[in-house]
Amino acid sequence: MATNRSPEIRKDAIHNRWVIFSPARARRPSDFKSKTDASSSANTHTECPFCAGHEHECAPEIFRFPPESTLDWKVRVIQNLYPALSRDLEPLNAERGGGGQVTLRGSGFHDVVIESPAHPVHLADLSPAQIADVLLAYKKRIDQLRAFDSIKYVQVFKNHGATAGASMSHSHSQILALPVIPPTASARIQSMKEHFEQTGECAICQVKQEDLSIHESNHFRSIVPFAATFPFEIWIIPRHHSSHFHDIDSDMASDLGGVLKLMLGKMSLQLKNPPYNMVIHSAPLRAESTQLPFSHWFIQIVPQLTVVGGFELGTGCYINPVLPEDAAKVLREVSIQD
Amino acid sequence: MATNRSPEIRKDAIHNRWVIFSPARARRPSDFKSKTDASSSANTHTECPFCAGHEHECAPEIFRFPPESTLDWKVRVIQNLYPALSRDLEPLNAERGGGGQVTLRGSGFHDVVIESPAHPVHLADLSPAQIADVLLAYKKRIDQLRAFDSIKYVQVFKNHGATAGASMSHSHSQILALPVIPPTASARIQSMKEHFEQTGECAICQVKQEDLSIHESNHFRSIVPFAATFPFEIWIIPRHHSSHFHDIDSDMASDLGGVLKLMLGKMSLQLKNPPYNMVIHSAPLRAESTQLPFSHWFIQIVPQLTVVGGFELGTGCYINPVLPEDAAKVLREVSIQD
Repeated sequence: MATNRSPEIRKDAIHNRWVIFSPARARRPSDFKSKTDASSSANTHTECPFCAGHEHECAPEIFRFPPESTLDWKVRVIQNLYPALSRDLEPLNAERGGGGQVTLRGSGFHDVVIESPAHPVHLADLSPAQIADVLLAYKKRIDQLRAFDSIKYVQVFKNHGATAGASMSHSHSQILALPVIPPTASARIQSMKEHFEQTGECAICQVKQEDLSIHESNHFRSIVPFAATFPFEIWIIPRHHSSHFHDIDSDMASDLGGVLKLMLGKMSLQLKNPPYNMVIHSAPLRAESTQLPFSHWFIQIVPQLTVVGGFELGTGCYINPVLPEDAAKVLREVSIQD
Repeated sequence: MATNRSPEIRKDAIHNRWVIFSPARARRPSDFKSKTDASSSANTHTECPFCAGHEHECAPEIFRFPPESTLDWKVRVIQNLYPALSRDLEPLNAERGGGGQVTLRGSGFHDVVIESPAHPVHLADLSPAQIADVLLAYKKRIDQLRAFDSIKYVQVFKNHGATAGASMSHSHSQILALPVIPPTASARIQSMKEHFEQTGECAICQVKQEDLSIHESNHFRSIVPFAATFPFEIWIIPRHHSSHFHDIDSDMASDLGGVLKLMLGKMSLQLKNPPYNMVIHSAPLRAESTQLPFSHWFIQIVPQLTVVGGFELGTGCYINPVLPEDAAKVLREVSIQD
């Protein structure tokens, strides 16, 4: 069902990029559903190394919660068996070749957070307190990784469903510690810095519109951003200014556990259990929080509803068929049983 | 089959971004095949409005080759029935709201190039001369669009296969004329300008390594770029410096028709007919070629072999499991019958 609203182009002030909103290409916002159900899985329980009892089939463990537990562990943080970066390489300075070619050694860390010992249990199925444990495992691992001088940025992310990039169906997240500040983070920090210099305010603290709001808890505000790149994209933002995710305390983690469960539940119910990506956008490690009045961490959740094609590849500009106000209204109003 | 080569991080000097090469995560380069065959189609011949005889089911035609042809047309350029931008909106200045919110009216053009009157014929199936006609249709339409002062950039792209974003299986490309210079283009131009200021040379003219080369024709060089973002990504580069695709003449278009047929054929044979995206990276319209010694147009072809997940979403950094030298060797050596 096409609407007759005109297309508009909005600037994402956080990332400094344009997004095209094209409601005429869309069905009604409430008609959006995932084409692929994320619960279809590649590996089954019996052959899964992430399940309790199969710990010996995994790459080495870094830590578990609770520390002294055996088969009754709640969360395990382990090395990735196929790491994108190698923890065994000494970091080296960049090598410069002819024609402006620059190469860095691929040193860094690539870890996996197993979110539950049980195969069929997904992140959204856990209790708020159990999700808080997962969040505190992220924090503890980041605290370990930032002790390495060579590590400049830590990216925490979760792929749910094979088409969203998950190669294992057992619920897990990943932590990649990088020897460079990646492009999205540096562009975001630069853009938020310019916003702060122009307005004297943090661009994320300023987000207050009621029509973009989904939910508020003690510590967090959940919204659809003004220039959302993807339909039904959700941001969970700390209500009080904070630059680094790893500054979270257990009170905030408990609150965030409940908020994440609620947002994932609303998304799953409204959009039919879509594959999704969840990423934590934080500040680079070497920047002390007190020095960053302009940088505010947040969680981005992106359900996989559209295909990225040549236009996005060529321009870096995205076409979103659902206006953020419409997506926020749908997500605000869908109610799940507590 | 994992290799024991260490991961490395390369800087893409054209786009100024990092790519992680992680061969340990890869199968042998020659084992890469597409999981989905792009020829599986959504719409069938009988219901396809792009087929000869169904012209009245399409949005208005802009032009066709040859101009006076009837059912024997070779190429048609038509309006997109579901345009992302509207040709009926007057361009307006940006509106600025609170909190740094900027909105532009979605004015612009969104056209479709139907590459053949026959449903089962894909771009790679056409003769070099027929592909040249498609390229000259792009050129002619860009020449029309750049007469509009409000249009700042034209993106030509092609999605082949449903999972690469093609909603119609009948072979076609798209042309989007934008009222802004999109982020990838402005970042690329800025990065190439800095390279030129530092070295006195165009970053793309400098690309000469034999181990990255796939093929050379009279006018074009086909390579895998030094810091390829995606496995088996191909760039087709004019051998003589040129900033704008629309400066192509019919001699170059004939040559490029043969090169495109060869590259698409090699890719299809080696990677099992993968879905792919093809994009033309050109300079912004308002920059005269003579003013841009640093900006060099090229065609990028990306077979869809990997899934983009939360890491790429969060960081803008890509993990490529195949080293460009290895991909170039495989593509150079696979031979197709002429």
